[in-house]
Formats: sequence, C-alpha cells, structure tokens
Amino acid sequence: MVYITDEIIDRIIKEDMPYSDITTEMLGIGEERGIISFYARNEGVAAGVEIAGKIFTKLGCKVIYKVKDGEKLSAGSMILQAEGTASALHAGWKVSLNTLEYLSGIATLCREMADIAYSVNKNIVLAATRKSMPLSRELVTSAFLAGGISAHRLGLSETVLIFKQHLEFIGGIDNLEKAIKSSNHKMVEKKIILETENMQDSIKALHYDFIDGLQLDKLSPDEIKYIVQEKNKINPAMLILAAGGINKGNIKEYAATQADVIVSSSFFHASPLDIKAVIEKQ
Amino acid sequence: MVYITDEIIDRIIKEDMPYSDITTEMLGIGEERGIISFYARNEGVAAGVEIAGKIFTKLGCKVIYKVKDGEKLSAGSMILQAEGTASALHAGWKVSLNTLEYLSGIATLCREMADIAYSVNKNIVLAATRKSMPLSRELVTSAFLAGGISAHRLGLSETVLIFKQHLEFIGGIDNLEKAIKSSNHKMVEKKIILETENMQDSIKALHYDFIDGLQLDKLSPDEIKYIVQEKNKINPAMLILAAGGINKGNIKEYAATQADVIVSSSFFHASPLDIKAVIEKQ
Amino acid sequence: MVYITDEIIDRIIKEDMPYSDITTEMLGIGEERGIISFYARNEGVAAGVEIAGKIFTKLGCKVIYKVKDGEKLSAGSMILQAEGTASALHAGWKVSLNTLEYLSGIATLCREMADIAYSVNKNIVLAATRKSMPLSRELVTSAFLAGGISAHRLGLSETVLIFKQHLEFIGGIDNLEKAIKSSNHKMVEKKIILETENMQDSIKALHYDFIDGLQLDKLSPDEIKYIVQEKNKINPAMLILAAGGINKGNIKEYAATQADVIVSSSFFHASPLDIKAVIEKQ
Amino acid sequence: MVYITDEIIDRIIKEDMPYSDITTEMLGIGEERGIISFYARNEGVAAGVEIAGKIFTKLGCKVIYKVKDGEKLSAGSMILQAEGTASALHAGWKVSLNTLEYLSGIATLCREMADIAYSVNKNIVLAATRKSMPLSRELVTSAFLAGGISAHRLGLSETVLIFKQHLEFIGGIDNLEKAIKSSNHKMVEKKIILETENMQDSIKALHYDFIDGLQLDKLSPDEIKYIVQEKNKINPAMLILAAGGINKGNIKEYAATQADVIVSSSFFHASPLDIKAVIEKQ
Amino acid sequence: MVYITDEIIDRIIKEDMPYSDITTEMLGIGEERGIISFYARNEGVAAGVEIAGKIFTKLGCKVIYKVKDGEKLSAGSMILQAEGTASALHAGWKVSLNTLEYLSGIATLCREMADIAYSVNKNIVLAATRKSMPLSRELVTSAFLAGGISAHRLGLSETVLIFKQHLEFIGGIDNLEKAIKSSNHKMVEKKIILETENMQDSIKALHYDFIDGLQLDKLSPDEIKYIVQEKNKINPAMLILAAGGINKGNIKEYAATQADVIVSSSFFHASPLDIKAVIEKQ
Amino acid sequence: MVYITDEIIDRIIKEDMPYSDITTEMLGIGEERGIISFYARNEGVAAGVEIAGKIFTKLGCKVIYKVKDGEKLSAGSMILQAEGTASALHAGWKVSLNTLEYLSGIATLCREMADIAYSVNKNIVLAATRKSMPLSRELVTSAFLAGGISAHRLGLSETVLIFKQHLEFIGGIDNLEKAIKSSNHKMVEKKIILETENMQDSIKALHYDFIDGLQLDKLSPDEIKYIVQEKNKINPAMLILAAGGINKGNIKEYAATQADVIVSSSFFHASPLDIKAVIEKQ
Repeated sequence: MVYITDEIIDRIIKEDMPYSDITTEMLGIGEERGIISFYARNEGVAAGVEIAGKIFTKLGCKVIYKVKDGEKLSAGSMILQAEGTASALHAGWKVSLNTLEYLSGIATLCREMADIAYSVNKNIVLAATRKSMPLSRELVTSAFLAGGISAHRLGLSETVLIFKQHLEFIGGIDNLEKAIKSSNHKMVEKKIILETENMQDSIKALHYDFIDGLQLDKLSPDEIKYIVQEKNKINPAMLILAAGGINKGNIKEYAATQADVIVSSSFFHASPLDIKAVIEKQ
Repeated sequence: MVYITDEIIDRIIKEDMPYSDITTEMLGIGEERGIISFYARNEGVAAGVEIAGKIFTKLGCKVIYKVKDGEKLSAGSMILQAEGTASALHAGWKVSLNTLEYLSGIATLCREMADIAYSVNKNIVLAATRKSMPLSRELVTSAFLAGGISAHRLGLSETVLIFKQHLEFIGGIDNLEKAIKSSNHKMVEKKIILETENMQDSIKALHYDFIDGLQLDKLSPDEIKYIVQEKNKINPAMLILAAGGINKGNIKEYAATQADVIVSSSFFHASPLDIKAVIEKQ
Repeated sequence: MVYITDEIIDRIIKEDMPYSDITTEMLGIGEERGIISFYARNEGVAAGVEIAGKIFTKLGCKVIYKVKDGEKLSAGSMILQAEGTASALHAGWKVSLNTLEYLSGIATLCREMADIAYSVNKNIVLAATRKSMPLSRELVTSAFLAGGISAHRLGLSETVLIFKQHLEFIGGIDNLEKAIKSSNHKMVEKKIILETENMQDSIKALHYDFIDGLQLDKLSPDEIKYIVQEKNKINPAMLILAAGGINKGNIKEYAATQADVIVSSSFFHASPLDIKAVIEKQ
Repeated sequence: MVYITDEIIDRIIKEDMPYSDITTEMLGIGEERGIISFYARNEGVAAGVEIAGKIFTKLGCKVIYKVKDGEKLSAGSMILQAEGTASALHAGWKVSLNTLEYLSGIATLCREMADIAYSVNKNIVLAATRKSMPLSRELVTSAFLAGGISAHRLGLSETVLIFKQHLEFIGGIDNLEKAIKSSNHKMVEKKIILETENMQDSIKALHYDFIDGLQLDKLSPDEIKYIVQEKNKINPAMLILAAGGINKGNIKEYAATQADVIVSSSFFHASPLDIKAVIEKQ
Repeated sequence: MVYITDEIIDRIIKEDMPYSDITTEMLGIGEERGIISFYARNEGVAAGVEIAGKIFTKLGCKVIYKVKDGEKLSAGSMILQAEGTASALHAGWKVSLNTLEYLSGIATLCREMADIAYSVNKNIVLAATRKSMPLSRELVTSAFLAGGISAHRLGLSETVLIFKQHLEFIGGIDNLEKAIKSSNHKMVEKKIILETENMQDSIKALHYDFIDGLQLDKLSPDEIKYIVQEKNKINPAMLILAAGGINKGNIKEYAATQADVIVSSSFFHASPLDIKAVIEKQ
Repeated sequence: MVYITDEIIDRIIKEDMPYSDITTEMLGIGEERGIISFYARNEGVAAGVEIAGKIFTKLGCKVIYKVKDGEKLSAGSMILQAEGTASALHAGWKVSLNTLEYLSGIATLCREMADIAYSVNKNIVLAATRKSMPLSRELVTSAFLAGGISAHRLGLSETVLIFKQHLEFIGGIDNLEKAIKSSNHKMVEKKIILETENMQDSIKALHYDFIDGLQLDKLSPDEIKYIVQEKNKINPAMLILAAGGINKGNIKEYAATQADVIVSSSFFHASPLDIKAVIEKQ
C-alpha cells in the first residue's frame, strides 16, 4: 500500500480542471446524475484503482464497484464504477482514466516480464530503476507493487549504490576498499552495492569483502552468466544484479544467467493499458 | 515559457532524495568539487533544460552552459553543464537526467512528427491530447512547446469539446443545437468543438452553425479526406481535427487529408532521448 | 462546479485561526453544542455556500441545511445551517460568513447587471476580466458561475488576447497579420481576439481575416454601435467585445450597442451581500 | 514587514498562467526584451510594491526601480520598473498590476481615513476588522501597514474579543464575570475586549474590572460620546473601540467621540488605485 | 482546539512512509485485519489523541475508542484503539505513538508544574516561551492546551514584547517612552510587555505608564519578590512575568514570589510519556 | 547534506511570524540596520547552521560568517553572523536560534555518545530510532549527520525490520522462515533485520539464514555480550544491533558488548545547546 495524500488526489484533479468543466456548464447538464464504468479492453493487471476511486470520492461521487490493485483483469472486465452528478463524473473521467491506464499498463508489463523471468529462474527478483518521469515516483511505485515487482532503489537516501561517478571522486575502484573501511558514515544496516561496467572490474569486485552486491551494467547475458559462475566459487553470498537495456524481449536470456536481480527501466515505458470508459445517464 | 515554481523543482529533488545521498556520505566525498555535463547521444530537440538548470541552481551548483529549450541537438553535443560539490552534483544527477531525457524525448518526437506532417501539409497544426501521466501535465506541456506543437486542450476549464459522454445527458446529438442555443453559459469567446465517431454524425455536423470545429475520432484517412472535401463545400470555416490512433507511422496519411489539426496521444509515449551524463572531479 | 481542494478550505480556516480560538477557550465553552444559521438580510444570489459548507464539515460540524450556489435569496431567507461544538462553530463563523458575503455579493451583482443587459439584448454575454484580488481567482470564478456570467479569460494560458503591449514587440498593428500567419504556434483551436483602443484601429481590424474577435477598450457606446454596424456589413462573423469602465450604471447603454460580449471588472468590486449569522446554544 | 513566502508569489503567478502565455507564444515575441513601468494615475499610497517586485524577480526580470511600501505617490509618479523578456513581462504584468492596484487602493483609503480621524483626535487608532476576502488576509495586512493602520485582530488565536455569540453559551452578559474569573485558561497577557450592542450593556460593562476594553457595535456617535464620558468618570483605563458601519463618510463624527479606536471593515472595500502599466520594447 | 489540517496529518504519515511499508509487504500480511491499542504505562495527561485518531482515520482505519485531549490517564489505562488492515495499522503505529508520547509528555509536565505552582499561588498563570523545535509549534500548542497552560506568545505577530535587542535600535531603555508615545503603529489593543534583566531597570520600569507588564528575565526569586512588592506600591496594575531558567525543580520558589505569570521553556523538554502500543490480529 | 526546501524554510519563518513583528513596528525601528551574531556558550558540535543561514538569506539579510554543520565549537566561538534590517533580524532571530540550539544539541550529544562508544569499540556504529517529534525528521536527520551518526531507519519504506507486531499476523516467530522464503515481495537488496526481546528468541534467530541482522531489544549488556559470542560461533556474518534504553549514561557498557550497532532514541532528547544571540545596531 502506497499511501496517497489528499493533496496528490486534489492535484491530479486540479491539473485537469483548475476552474470548472466549461463544456458541461455550457450544456447545462451538470446536475444530471449518471454512472461511469471502466472496463479493460484487454487482459492485464489492475493498478491505480485505489487512486481513481479516491478521485471520484473526493469529487462527491459514490464508488459502487472496484477491483483491488494487483488483480488480474480479463478482457472486458469491469475495473471501477462510480455514481454521481454529470459534473463530477466529467471532472473525474479523464484523470482517473489516465491514472488507470498508465498505472495498469505498468503493472501489466511488470507481471508479463516477471512471468517470463520466472519461467527460467523462479527465484529471480525484478526491480525498477529510478528512471521515473519527474513527480511520478509515488504513482509508479504503487503500480510496481501491483505488478508484483519492487522498486530497486526508491531514491538516494535509501540504498547504497556506488557508480563510477562516485569512484571518480576517490580516484577509482582500487581506492574503494579504503574509502569504505575508513568511512565515518558506515552503512552496516544497508547492503553495499557496486556497479561495474566491464568484466575486469566485475571479476575483481567478486573478491571484495566490503560490498554485498554487484550490479553489472550493460554486460551481455554470457558475461553475466560467467560472473555468476565465478561468484558461486569465490563469494557465494554476493548478490548479483543484472542491469542495462533489459526489456520484455530479452529478459528471458538475462534471467537465465541466474543473476539474483534483474534491474530494468523498461517498466516505466509500458504502453498504457487500453481501458474503456462509459458514462450513462441514470 | 511554462513557469515552473520553486515547489515543483524542490519536489523533483526531494522525490529522489528525501534526506541525504547515503552513498556519497559513506564515501566521504561530499565536499569534493566537480563538473557534471550532459550530452545528447543522438540527434534530437532539447527540452527540460530550463528545469534541469533550476535543479542544479537550487542545489547550490553553478550552471556553466546550457542550450535553450527547443534547440536542435546534434549527436554528441552538450546540453547542460554545471559545477558544484560532489554532494550537490549527485543529488541533481539522476533527477535532471530524467527530466532531460523524458522531456527531450517528447520534444524530439513532436518535431519529427511535425516534420512528416508538414511535408504533405505545411499549414497543419499538431496538438497533444490530455492523456498525460497524472501530475506531469505542466512538464510535458513545456516539452510540447519546445517541440513546436501545442497542447490541444490543457484541461476542462479551457476549451469546449463535446464528447458523446456529454451527449448522453442531453439525449443525443440531435438535441445539441437546442442545448447550445438555449445555454445560460454561452461560450462565445471559445470555439465549440464537437467530437464525432462515425461518418453519419460527421456529415450531419458539417451543417451545424452552432459549432466551430469537428473532431473526427478514429475515422480512417479516407473518411477524413471525404469529410474535409464536404466541409469545403458546405461550411468552409469549420475547423477539422483528426484524432484517434495517430502516430509517427501514420501521421503522413492523416496530414494528407488536409484536416486542420492532428490530435494525438502518441507524443506522451515518446522514447526518452538517450543522454549521457559525465561527472568529473575538478 | 469549481472544485475546491481540501487545502484551500484548510487555508481559509487557518488564516483566521492558526492555533485555537482563545476567547472560546478562556470562557470554557468549547464543548457546548450549538447551531449556526446564516440568513440573507436582503435579496440576492447565493454563492460560496458549497465552500462554507465544506468549512463546517471539515471542522467536524454537521451541515443541516444549505441552498445551492446560484439560488435566488429573498430577504430573510436561510442560506446555511450547521450544528456542532461551540469551538467548531466559532472557528467557522467569520470565515464562512466572509466567504458567503463576498461571493454572494459578486453573484448578486452579476445577476443584476445581466438582467439589465438582457433587457435590451437578450443574447448578450457578460464576462469578467482578470482583475481579481491576487489568490482569489478560483473563489471569484465560482461566484461568477453562481451569478450566471463567465470568466472572460481565466488566465494567460487559456485565450489569445492581443493587447497593444504585445503589438509593441512586433512593431505595431500593421505587422500583426504577418506575425499571426507565420506563427510557429498557430492557435487554430482558439479564437484570436485583438484589443483596440480607438476607432481607426477598430475599423481597420474589422477587415482582418486572421482574427476572430475585437475587444473595444474604452470606446463610447456610440462608437461601439458604429463598429457593430460596420462589422455587420464587413465581417458578420467577427465577435465584438465591449470593455473598459462598464458597470451597473452604464451597462444598459453598452448592451444596447449590440456588441456580443460585455467585459467588465466591476463584478470584482461588488458590495458584499449583507448576511446575518446567528449562533444558538442547543 | 509582512513576510511573503515564495509559495505565495508562485501561487499568484500560476493563478494567472498555469502553463504559458499563449498570446506571446503565438506572436513569437517571447525572447524580445523590454521594460515594464507602473505609474500612479492619481495620488495615493503605495502598497504591494515589495510583492510585485518579487513577482518580476521570480520570473527572471530585473527590478530597476521601486518605491517603498507606504510611500506617498503623486499623480503620474513611477511606482515600479522592471526589465526582462517579453515573455516574463507579460507573465508578470497583470498579476503585479492587480497586486499594486488592490493593495495601494487599500493603503490609500487607510491614509485618507486616518487623516480625517486625526484632524479631530490625533491620538485615535484605526484598525481593520477580520472581514477579508478569504485567502487574502496576509496581503491586505501588508496594505494596512503601508497605509499606517493596523489589523484590529488578525485572527481568533490572537486577541480576546467576546461577542454575544459567546455570551449565548454562558447564559448572557451577567455570567461573564464568573466565567472569566474562574477560567482555566486565564489570558492575563491579553487585553480582554467585550463587544456590546446597546447602551444598557455598555454602561453596565464600564463597571467591569475583569475586562480591558469595550467594543461598541453600531452605536451612534452621540451614544459613543456619552459612553466615553461615563468611562472617564467610572473607569478611565478602559479602552473604548467604536465599530459598526464606520467609513470615510462618517469617520470624523466617530473620531470626535474620543473613542480610543475606530474599527472598520470599509478598508477592505477600497477602490483599487488606478495604475498605468507601460511595456516598451528595448 | 487547535485545528490540524489534512496536510499536516498527511505530512506526519508520509514522513515515516514515503512509499509503502516494505516489511509488511515482504511478509504478505497487509490485508490481514487487526486492532491497535495504546496504553499509558504511567500516570499522565493525554495529548495528541485527536491527531493520532485522525492519522488512523486517514489511513482507512476505524477509531474504536479514544480519550479526550487533556484527560488524566491512570497507569495502564487505554488512550486510543483503532481497527483496520495490518498494512494501515503498521503505517500508523509509530507516527501516532510518537505523537501521543511527545505531546502527552508535554501535557503531563505542564499539569505537574501547574499543580506545584498552584499550591503556593492559586492565581498564577503558566505560559510557554517560543522555544519550540522548528515546525512543531502547532503540535506543542495543542499539548499546552491539553496540559492547562497557554502559549505565552505564539509568535511575533501576536504580542508586544520588548527585548534589549529592540532597545539596541532606539538607544536604550531611556528612549522607550518616546518611542512608544510617538509610535505610528500604536498597539493599544495589546498589552505592552518589557523584558528587563536586572533590578535597576526593573524598578525603573515599574514607574512606566506606557507599558502594561514587565517580564523579569533571570532574576532570582528574592529579586522578583521584591519587585512584586514594589509594584504593589507603585503600580498595582502592572503585570509581572517571571522568566529564565524556571523548571519543575524551582517553580515553587518562583510561584511564591506572587508574580502573575511564570514563563518557561522547560515544557518543551518534557520526557515523552511512556506509552505501550499493542497490535493484535483479529 | 540533507536538502532543505524553500517551503520548509518559509514554514519555519511563518510559524513564528504569520504577519509582521508588531514590536519592531510599534517601535518604528524596522528600517534600521544591524548585525546578529550567534555564539556557543559551551563546547559542542554545530548543526542547523545551513538552515539558519538560509532563514536569514530568505529574509533579505546577508550571511557574513558561518561554520559548517558538523564543526566542533569551542565555548564562546561564533557560529553564524548576518547583517540586515532590524525588521529582518528580529524576524529571523528566535527561529534561527531555536534551529541552532535544538539541532546543535542533538549533534553534540551524538558526538559525545559516539566518543564514549568508540573508546571501547572503535568500529561500532551509532544509529537513531524513528522516535522523532512529528514533522521534524528531516531536521533531526541533518543533526545526526552533523553529529556523525546515522538514522537507523528513516522510515517504513526503507529498511526491513520485523517486530513482534508483524509476527502477530503470521502466527509467531516460527512461521517467519516460511513467510520470508515464500514472499512475493522478496527484499534481496535490503538487509532483513529481526527484533527479538528475549534470550530464547535471540539464540534461535542466530541460526536463521533468512535474516541478515538481529536487533536485541531491552536485553542487558551481559545478555547481548553472550549473544555476540554465540553469533561469532554460529553465524559470524549476522549483524547484531543493541537497542532499548541506551543513553549517554550506559552506552559504554553496551558498546563493550561488541554489538555492531547501538540503536538509541536518546539522541532526540538532547538538551538544546546553549547559544547566545547578540543583535547590534550598525
């Protein structure tokens, strides 16, 4: 459960309707009552339903039916239904549709990629990067949860992930041990993950007792497989994360490397789930 | 110029770094000074540069170089460069990269689709729908401007666009004239646009003197072409908008219909522009 | 329906009561229960009732009765009634009274001016300018709706209105055609309105096929009447807006010019409607 | 000095320009540079200048000249001048003009009413009620300061003012002594003010040693004069406030009563000061 | 009643759970239902209960039981009980516990110090300074109310309190009369309080007819007693406030001086009340 | 570096001065210029200086001198100095003093406790719990960093820490293995920490290969020492955290147990550092 504040719900509504819905007003239909229903046009996984429900509730509508975030949707199945004035239904229509389509699209892709990955390695973990559209991390994180994956790293304050952009300031990978061991801010409660971008550094890092995991960026599945095998010999407790260009098309190969975690940005670029919204007069 | 408030800049930063960057802290490199540079890996159109610059400025960095939003980028060209502490550079790195990649990706696609459309109809106007990821409308609107297109409809309070979901409450399209002509909230300063979804309604609507434009949803290019020809005979001042499933692959056909406006949601789903970020110690 | 967020309601309450009501506390009456009732002292049009109701609801009171925004009020009639603790009633009393008085005052004046204008031109449209007290646009817009008029232009992002302050940058009115026709940001979905301030420019502009409307600023009723007559000959589709110093005292003359729209700032300066608030112990 | 946060400045700007200024964009003039100058058309007192300056600064303009809040303005004198892009100048133009006009109008009326009141009682204090347009209290308070008056009561948390709506819960004025003397929340650091609405209660209250001041609501100047005389005999330290329907037209009579404080809501309803804004291309 | 906005409740929740509770998620227990109960381990005074209740309500739980803010708690007694999903209960657990513990700790100390002070001077008033942890003033003020004391000065906009840091700008205490008597911003509705830090200034100030109270900072109880005696002779209406280093250990001595008000910062540094939280599966 | 937004700085200022400083205004000294200087009265560690500096900068003052957060302060040494108008200095005085005193007090205690702990175990890590005053977590986290300790767990979304309140929903500690191993939300990138409250569970948990650490709550130093010894035999990689009632008085004993981490809430209850603020007229 990602807790969504009133402010975020209000911001979503106001972004689309700063004042009033002038079409509804021009037509003089605002006080009529109706029902809005959302249906999945295709199979998928529901996400954003909790948020969409809150949107209609805040607008004064009554939510009659909703599935849970994370539920599987068959083609044609109903996702959400709400009842209220035409004015409120029109105010909520597109913003809740956008919420449902974007977030369910992400959740659906997560589930699809996970299913593919599990088919070759049932213990593998899928995780999203931090490549979210600015301002949307909270929303997409709720979609990841619904889709059964996790956010790899919700932000800089949460996990230790050493990139070459950090190594630049300590004089390269060979100074890492000293930097970590003499640190004034030891992060013993966190796993220390190092990102490497080539075989040489990766193999070297397998011997590091001062890190807990290795994120292999843009290595080929064969290279990753080799690193995993070496790891099993040298340092079996080391976590191996595969990252860089992994998507629905190639995840099977990456999962087959027996890496522990697949890290991908492609979840963010899921096609929105196609959802049909019907408004009927009561 | 879309004015971006301090709050939005702060929200973008905080979303990724609610407290501190624990990797930078663990390594004890925060006070080192460096330079971050962003380069386009491919050709494209810059967007989000103003915002990315503000991110670094707020973090206490100095922006040394930046292109303008809307500028064409050649492969390898620099977009933005800022100088500051390692702590600030790492705080701003990914969030500004996300901003630049998402928004430049959108701007680039806008420009590409516009170029294709202009090649067959140099007066055509491209416009995006309201299908933005919730909370991002302000950001994507700045990218549309950079890419040379406009937002078709920034929200419900701005333009009059009559959907079948409105007609439902007045008893169908045949009651529209009465509803508009007897309206207590006449919107004479606005263009009244009606969306139709089939030939019959579209042709009927060409005769309506109480609307200013017709948005043809999911009609084929041939159908649209026919409507445009009829319009030229019946009601030459009527604005014709083509909408529904138009994307980079088929925009040429739609533009060739001589519709006035191409309305598309595909701008939102642009691939992020691939941008390289380099951090160097000073 | 202008959607008012929780934040705005809370801000209205907190503006008057950042901490607690110290008078109520000193007297030790906070836990007593009572009823607050609001009555119009004079005839008028209700506005702000939805907001006032939300204020009491958020404070934990129960709204027992309320009229709808836009309803006509006879002298002495009840507008709103709520029940709750003395503490909550006192917290809500003045801020809801201010809301009701200011917004109903505006709605009342809108209705009065509209009635006068309709008496000589039943198709005329009344619209308010953007001269709102900073921070209040959302509130006053809800009052305009209640009073049956519309906001002429809710802001810069919504309508195209060309002032001489724009012409200054293109070298005057004679360069306008070129600027619009060669624009990279064609606004075909919007009506293009030009403001003119003298007869010469106004008549010239009647011939412009690249604008949709003409806002005549500070022209006399006779001048406007003349422009309207010329327009009917030259360019019957052109929208004519009369603006500049129009108020309840002279609106009849302006409406009689047969301009399409009367634009006025005087709505903002309506006297608050005189409303009586009674608090009774239960 | 009323401290105005970045958020309020941003909110003022965004209220008028949620996205971009589409007129400026259509005309392609955004990058041109110009100067905006604000001139008082009539005599008055400046207010809102600090805020207007901040608006332009936040938009990226440079403030070249500004008078101080509270300064007297002669007809035709310059109030504020700023330099920047056409895009920024147009974004700031109307919202800063509204700020200057509304707040200077209030400051001017404050000064005028104060001058009248001082002419008959140079020690009298003028104070505004809490009847502010919702959301504007901070802004109008800055105008009161500029105009040389004070806010009588910024809110419920600040001063003790007992209305009949409080007495209702303790069983009337005769129970007030007991309520105050046995209070668990003694407000000894505050002056306790009681509002009375008739002669009988007012005279009775002059004998109350448990209050510090008496606010006479809607009593006539003669009645107030009588109360002041009685007070001088009975309880010279008691503060006398005259309230209820006092405005520029009758303040002289009220001031002549030798009450200590004149409390009025009419400051809120000042006509905006007429200010001319000129934009010139550089 | 200190009114707490939705935003503050949401901020309290989000501060601890920006995304989701990953422990609850990992364990897959989120949908289970349970009851959370809070018990005082020791005697005390309840505060923060209203806020804690709102936290659970916003998270979708149902509050089953709660005491009122200000109620006395016996050891082992229940303070609050709520029912909901494990996910919601865990989300609210620590933040509501922190709220209850901090605020009840303050309320308890207030009551204890008040009881000691009342034992020697039953009319004395206790008041807290402005030394609150930044961002917490609203919360601690609600605890002061629950504990039966008041905030001495909620902020700079509320009371007039002249420190030597003000006198510095007028050239010292001997210029104070002139500064006040010639003030353009007379604060006649406020009590004017002067802080003095030595006997000489304090005695001198007893003769000032232009102030209403004297805050004696860091004077000894004997010195204060002497000042009070002198005051009774010279200026019996003058309010005497004792401030500076007063705490639970020495308040009795200060109260015995017969000063009118005891001002202390020690309320802020109360130990949190020890409260037990029990979560049971339903 | 904890990034503090403009909004938080503004909120800190406004909390103390919603409108203006009425004392400064009454005295008419607002436009005078002065210098404010903050000095440590005792030894300590600076924190909050960055924030205090931002407060003065936002108020329009110029910061002349400031130490860095985390710097050691000798008695009498200057911490911060700023120059500006009396109005701005008085607006910033107390709120920056509160910020400096609270945060430096925490940083000082952190350093003191760390020094004691390091004297017996130089590798030990100190960490604070989540027991922060609501709304202050960001501020106190910046003080922890300055004091050289870390936040143990910034919130629920960041670390996996299993309490008995979680075990309640899975049927106790013996079902933990199954719950974790079959989890749909595997948290492989996080260390899984389990809190135990008695010897029996603690020893049992040493054998768990599905957790990474053990938080021993309220065990005695002797018990902890025993667990550490057992751990070294059974599961040397397991992290041992000692928690529950650890403070400056007993930390030495706990550190001597050779636990890896000392978790304490006592940092939150540090006495504010005593800081002297001097304002001098320029």
